[in-house]
Amino acid sequence: MISFARGVPAPECLAVDELADCARAALERDGRAILSYGPGGGYGPLREHLAEQHGVEPSRVVITSGSLQGFVFLAEQLVRPGTRVLVEAPTYDRPLKILTRLGAEIVTVPMDADGLVPDELPEGEFAFLYTIPTFQNPSGRTLSVERRHRLAELARERGLLVLEDDPYGLVRYDGEPVPSVFELANSERVAYCSSFSKTVAPGVRVGWFVLPPRLAAEIEALAVSTYISPPYLSQATVLEFLRRDSFEPNLERVNGLLRERRDAMLAALEREMPEDASWTRPDGGYFVWLELPSGPPSSELLAEAEEAGVTFVKGSDFFPGGRGGERALRLAFSFVSPDEISDGVARLGGLVRAAAPAAL
Amino acid sequence: MISFARGVPAPECLAVDELADCARAALERDGRAILSYGPGGGYGPLREHLAEQHGVEPSRVVITSGSLQGFVFLAEQLVRPGTRVLVEAPTYDRPLKILTRLGAEIVTVPMDADGLVPDELPEGEFAFLYTIPTFQNPSGRTLSVERRHRLAELARERGLLVLEDDPYGLVRYDGEPVPSVFELANSERVAYCSSFSKTVAPGVRVGWFVLPPRLAAEIEALAVSTYISPPYLSQATVLEFLRRDSFEPNLERVNGLLRERRDAMLAALEREMPEDASWTRPDGGYFVWLELPSGPPSSELLAEAEEAGVTFVKGSDFFPGGRGGERALRLAFSFVSPDEISDGVARLGGLVRAAAPAAL
Repeated sequence: MISFARGVPAPECLAVDELADCARAALERDGRAILSYGPGGGYGPLREHLAEQHGVEPSRVVITSGSLQGFVFLAEQLVRPGTRVLVEAPTYDRPLKILTRLGAEIVTVPMDADGLVPDELPEGEFAFLYTIPTFQNPSGRTLSVERRHRLAELARERGLLVLEDDPYGLVRYDGEPVPSVFELANSERVAYCSSFSKTVAPGVRVGWFVLPPRLAAEIEALAVSTYISPPYLSQATVLEFLRRDSFEPNLERVNGLLRERRDAMLAALEREMPEDASWTRPDGGYFVWLELPSGPPSSELLAEAEEAGVTFVKGSDFFPGGRGGERALRLAFSFVSPDEISDGVARLGGLVRAAAPAAL
Repeated sequence: MISFARGVPAPECLAVDELADCARAALERDGRAILSYGPGGGYGPLREHLAEQHGVEPSRVVITSGSLQGFVFLAEQLVRPGTRVLVEAPTYDRPLKILTRLGAEIVTVPMDADGLVPDELPEGEFAFLYTIPTFQNPSGRTLSVERRHRLAELARERGLLVLEDDPYGLVRYDGEPVPSVFELANSERVAYCSSFSKTVAPGVRVGWFVLPPRLAAEIEALAVSTYISPPYLSQATVLEFLRRDSFEPNLERVNGLLRERRDAMLAALEREMPEDASWTRPDGGYFVWLELPSGPPSSELLAEAEEAGVTFVKGSDFFPGGRGGERALRLAFSFVSPDEISDGVARLGGLVRAAAPAAL
């Protein structure tokens, strides 16, 4: 099976030997603290490192077992049945499921090629807006700098808490880095989260949140009452990796591997897809969003594709209640080799053309 | 401050160098799997190891970030506002807080020196009974073997799910091991959980649950939707520690250290406490439960003790709604040296005698 479904780095991206050294070195350096209970908000020295990077007090940084765990805490703190929450449409499916489980009323913000449209933010009170401005999951879209300024402004004007999720910002293959909404806002109304899943390894499960002081304290208290303290070994191993200056060269290597995959994906789509198909051309991240206006519903296409040995995630999974994206596909290019990408897209293209010959 | 409050092993119990070797070796052995996403129920090889130990299928074992995280999942799965749950009185305070947060109606089972009294289990329907049968936190009491049989029988007869929490079972200084209720029951009505916090290191945050098949699947799904997969590095490090046969010698060393502390605590209580005081004499675990029938309320004593440089946890923290244990103290002997124990108990004894001269 050629998997365009798995939004994860390929195993060859993982710096296994270096991380093995780092784990040992971290325990040798600070084993008693790492192996004991401690602050629920994360391993102290990594918290300080991240706080310095973001220019905030360490108490505003909460490190969680991957950023999803932090999202769960945040949602548990802010959402009660009926609480209104804003999300982009489409957006990452796991937060949608968490919000649904907690009974949130999920309201969508429209997007176009430049990301969410700030001036179409629905009126009313919302617990927060969840956004992935850079190389969005699932669309691969990036919010323009102008709109980042506007979103920061709106957060302040409307007193709206914005949660900026930024796992892919450093996974850039072309173009210039864009400032985060968090940096531009310089306001406690914009919270930020990211993780080392895409830049070090997903299995380390180290995500972090930069939050307004009171919310940080509330989330840390929830963390303590859930798991006392997080497993520091992973967090200390990541810090060791950062301290050795292994991070940048490893990221360059990984981005080089992934750039080839992104290129293979875009070239294959150009070759294989019918004329009315459209797709995003991301400068980074893991995902291309493919729209097939005259194609079969993507749920039908998925069933056929799996029989043909290819899998992806259907677009409707990324809309609240599955309302949207019926003819869209999320294609992840991170997990499969360039050759498999060409092969998989060719198979998909064949199925699309067979289903809609008129569109050729 | 001499802390009888911290129910944690002293840092000198931690096998730092050995665990540093194990972390590195684990990554060298199986780094790609450890550093990737995988099953939400835990690192596969450790799951298999534990499953074999308990004589169950690996799918019935769910490994969580410490056992408290698993308790949260279990409670989230089984408890809705108003759901009735049975606990021992007194019992571990963190589960009480979690149950309270979820809106459970907490009903208590009476205890005596031999642990909970099975034949006084309240009538009615309950989502589950939470019990710590061996070296209980906070009382240090151990359920007699006869009562274990009876509890297993009642679980079957009444269709009551029993959650046996057993973090201290292997932390034994004297006497013969007792069978777990889980082993005696040999029934899916008894679930079991434990952790490596007391036998390897608390900071590794590796706890595990052995559950009925359907509940195991539900808890694993909750884990996936909370953190995708747990940080395998800690789990793989613990497995490496087990595989090297480091576990038993380390446990013997730690138990030796803790036995001295338990002995120091019991000797000091004998020397320092008034005649009407009573306390448990546990064969293992971390805790002595001290009752001072003619002493001051333990909340008052705590304030005075902290001024005198000694701290403990007051008994009422271990009863639902704080209703009980007004003149009881939980004294943990695990964290402080024998000399500090003698000193701390002497200070406490002085305060008790000063408050209640008539009791001498």
